[in-house]
Amino acid sequence: MLAEIITIGDEILIGQIVDTNSAFIGKALNRIGVSVYQIKSVQDDKAHILKALNEAEDNVDIIIVTGGLGPTKDDITKHTICEYFDDILVQDDAVLAHVEALFKKYISTPIMEVNKEQALVPSKAKILKNRFGTAPGMWLEKGNKVFVSMPGVPYEMKALMEYEVLPKLQKRYKFPFILHKTVLTYGVGESVIADKIKDWENNLPAFIKLAYLPSLGKVRLRLSAKGADKNDIEEEVERQVVTLQKLIGDIIVGYEDENSIEVTIGEILKGKGLTIATAESCTGGKIAEQFTANAGASAYFKGSIISYATDAKTDILNVSEELIKKHSVVSIEVAEAMAVNAKQLFKTNYSIATTGNAGPSKGDSEAEVGTVCIAIATPKGLVSGTFNMGNHRTKVINKTMNKSFEMLLKEILKN
Amino acid sequence: MLAEIITIGDEILIGQIVDTNSAFIGKALNRIGVSVYQIKSVQDDKAHILKALNEAEDNVDIIIVTGGLGPTKDDITKHTICEYFDDILVQDDAVLAHVEALFKKYISTPIMEVNKEQALVPSKAKILKNRFGTAPGMWLEKGNKVFVSMPGVPYEMKALMEYEVLPKLQKRYKFPFILHKTVLTYGVGESVIADKIKDWENNLPAFIKLAYLPSLGKVRLRLSAKGADKNDIEEEVERQVVTLQKLIGDIIVGYEDENSIEVTIGEILKGKGLTIATAESCTGGKIAEQFTANAGASAYFKGSIISYATDAKTDILNVSEELIKKHSVVSIEVAEAMAVNAKQLFKTNYSIATTGNAGPSKGDSEAEVGTVCIAIATPKGLVSGTFNMGNHRTKVINKTMNKSFEMLLKEILKN
Repeated sequence: MLAEIITIGDEILIGQIVDTNSAFIGKALNRIGVSVYQIKSVQDDKAHILKALNEAEDNVDIIIVTGGLGPTKDDITKHTICEYFDDILVQDDAVLAHVEALFKKYISTPIMEVNKEQALVPSKAKILKNRFGTAPGMWLEKGNKVFVSMPGVPYEMKALMEYEVLPKLQKRYKFPFILHKTVLTYGVGESVIADKIKDWENNLPAFIKLAYLPSLGKVRLRLSAKGADKNDIEEEVERQVVTLQKLIGDIIVGYEDENSIEVTIGEILKGKGLTIATAESCTGGKIAEQFTANAGASAYFKGSIISYATDAKTDILNVSEELIKKHSVVSIEVAEAMAVNAKQLFKTNYSIATTGNAGPSKGDSEAEVGTVCIAIATPKGLVSGTFNMGNHRTKVINKTMNKSFEMLLKEILKN
Repeated sequence: MLAEIITIGDEILIGQIVDTNSAFIGKALNRIGVSVYQIKSVQDDKAHILKALNEAEDNVDIIIVTGGLGPTKDDITKHTICEYFDDILVQDDAVLAHVEALFKKYISTPIMEVNKEQALVPSKAKILKNRFGTAPGMWLEKGNKVFVSMPGVPYEMKALMEYEVLPKLQKRYKFPFILHKTVLTYGVGESVIADKIKDWENNLPAFIKLAYLPSLGKVRLRLSAKGADKNDIEEEVERQVVTLQKLIGDIIVGYEDENSIEVTIGEILKGKGLTIATAESCTGGKIAEQFTANAGASAYFKGSIISYATDAKTDILNVSEELIKKHSVVSIEVAEAMAVNAKQLFKTNYSIATTGNAGPSKGDSEAEVGTVCIAIATPKGLVSGTFNMGNHRTKVINKTMNKSFEMLLKEILKN
């Protein structure tokens, strides 16, 4: 069964926002066994939306549309869908009551006519309740094809997908089983990996597809399998991963189902009752933010000192001025002192420290743009290294974060 | 002149990665006067890519393709483009020399045959130099249509766009002028704004389009204009913005061209020689990370203490245990103490402090999920508030960040 995702909004086409909805919807559909044929982002324009709906109806069985359901003049999706289904708008009393209740609870200003119009829906649509907003989701059918329209606000759309769309799709169709298993490797390039595993890759069964996803010091290998029987699929993928482990086990740092490396780290720390803190200079809080983005992080993440200015390194992190003068602010010695002191200040078992120059100019340090020192303090001591992370600010920050997680995970797995 | 962006890769369709390339390309094309007709993400599949190229050739004049140019088996874009243009692959000596040089400089492993194959390119293609990677960009023409193929690695693609694609497009065509001007408002919902400005909106000239972009406590109003004469366009948009300022000046906090609110804050602080630090609990480094993502942040951003654990609030931020016991960890009093102490520790003019419960469970605090206290310390004193940020973790964190920036900017503009 194939689906197409259509996201509507000029803001996507002019690059004012990144379309994150499609990735969420794609992942959610895969989870229940629906493959996404393609994703299309189109303009807030009636003719364009109609063309996209038409083409999608030719290509796939399930069409998922987001965006353009707001109360303002530039939102035209509802009227366009109404035209596509040759339908009229009627008032839905349950939606009206919901909109009025939301206004009462959260909004200080009185409800207006345009807000009440959110309760006007195509007469042929089944309403999908939007828990977090005023624009309802809509479910329409044409022959054996299903059309779903949802607002573009990410958290409203996400709740609609989880509570309404996915359960209804599973009730309506019988889907095959899709499994993606991603193997995380760090430290070696994709062409070297491809060379090491080429015989294995060539002998993969036809229903398993392999993809290489290289990025900034790591390569993810994704095995994607699809079939009728969940057990068969899971067993075969597991068997292939075991073989892969024999071939390149030395560079595999973990597996990603839903989990990224920082979630894996968090789970291990939590399981062992261990804790971590960070002392960040060039990464500026990026590492801390990755930890705290996950629910339950307070069990293992104690906090962080972002010592962006050199003063902050001496005054708050207690790194000695002499040490900085002697070795310069971007040095192994300073990174190690930051790590040790952060571990002590936050009373944790582990800490990560970063100091470097993310560019584009040299700043306080003598170091070349892209030079980064990372230190990890562990219950047993210290590991550290100096790296050249290239010459693009975002790249340097992200590569440093990835390298820190790689170094930390190796230490955690040792202990 | 219209363009279509085609991003290739199963990882996009299964939601393993978010397609950020399209937004960058869309914004870049707009800057030189090219409108994006639509964005399409397709599978690593020859038939599908050929279909997408065909349809794009019907729809638009400029087709920009990213992805699928790596050295591994799953990358098929180059061969597919070769087939689309009925062409053969030939070795490009300059590309080969570049690949060999990159290996010598950055990669510890020896160069392999698959890497050398990166130098095989369609004979009809003009080569666009990829400064940061081994896969070259390619420029092909068919009648009066232009096709550009670039690797999907974001920083490689970005450099190719800036240094190769945009200059070549500007040389090849004469484009109109496109201007987007975005007005940032905080604190009032989109339907209330729409009501206040409806007469103005209805009287906008035909070449100016208005869009409402609401998100988590802020609404961005985007005016998009297109025309032959740069001066006319700029003047008319400016005139409309002045009128808008008269209608809703009380909720406008700034304008976004390239700039987001934290960049605006940074520029003002830098201009005045003022500094800031943050003390973050529930936002976990998110606010610090926004500041440090910008080059030159070290001029005004001194650092941050992420006091995620309650211990960190007392031991490192010096918030008294009694105060926390008396008012609880999520309280105005604790937020204010955090702000004052951070300002003192980092010796800055301003500070932002956040403490709250981002959920999903109650954690250390007694506070309901979504309850957040924010305090801003300024040269003249303190402002603070308690807010209900809803009940979704990411939403609570982002909404808190936005509210903090709003409160801070108001204070900065006062002083």
